[in-house]
Amino acid sequence: MQSFFKEIESSEKGRQLALEAVLNAIKLNADGLIPAIAQQYDSGEVLMMAWMNREALEETLATGRVCYYSRSREKLWRKGESSGQQQHLKSAALDCDGDTLLLQVDQTGPACHTGRRSCFYVELGAHGATIVSDVMIDPALLYQGKKS
Amino acid sequence: MQSFFKEIESSEKGRQLALEAVLNAIKLNADGLIPAIAQQYDSGEVLMMAWMNREALEETLATGRVCYYSRSREKLWRKGESSGQQQHLKSAALDCDGDTLLLQVDQTGPACHTGRRSCFYVELGAHGATIVSDVMIDPALLYQGKKS
Repeated sequence: MQSFFKEIESSEKGRQLALEAVLNAIKLNADGLIPAIAQQYDSGEVLMMAWMNREALEETLATGRVCYYSRSREKLWRKGESSGQQQHLKSAALDCDGDTLLLQVDQTGPACHTGRRSCFYVELGAHGATIVSDVMIDPALLYQGKKS
Repeated sequence: MQSFFKEIESSEKGRQLALEAVLNAIKLNADGLIPAIAQQYDSGEVLMMAWMNREALEETLATGRVCYYSRSREKLWRKGESSGQQQHLKSAALDCDGDTLLLQVDQTGPACHTGRRSCFYVELGAHGATIVSDVMIDPALLYQGKKS
């Protein structure tokens, strides 16, 4: 039997699928998680990548507020619950293999726990690496001892 | 001792780092891999996510042609070697935890093995899912029995 994602490969734009069937076909890793890329919906900037379990994804789709699964804290993590810097969902898409999510979000302030807008701030070149963005907000002000 | 990435968190924009030190500090997963997000450098479209090992990353930085590690074929995979649809590197950045890469690329034609421009073509909503892009090029023409 072909996999669900193989079967839908040649589908035309506009085809509707049952959400439950898609969610059941998602390929979670050995820890039950799927990587989720967060992109600022209007500027296109990629802000961060984190992980979701099925519960986090279903909550995110239902509420419109992005919820990840924190691997370090081993629990659901509603982005911004400590820092106040929330992510609101504009749309979500699954990739061709059903093992990665791309979220279009509206991010309040910095997405990164360092206080930077984006987590991707260490640029790698052929001969060296460079810090390419400054901290927007001192993380000590964002968290007061917590992390999110 | 603080981790390398913790130590550089408060660095100002423009700080230079030794490439070898950064590469040595990258957090690979249990399979020796790191996820790499590919974004079309001018349009901002997120095209795909694949995996790299250290060898693939070093080759990509040295040659400017994106090389991943294929988990299914268990070998280096120079994007486009079967399909002809190559990715040329514009810049690469590592995230704050040193466990995810963001590549700015120039992608020839479709990035997706289904013949679509982007792999993220199954949109998920609160009540259903929808195919949101059409195939650009019939994959049978791209691969003639191969996959890349």
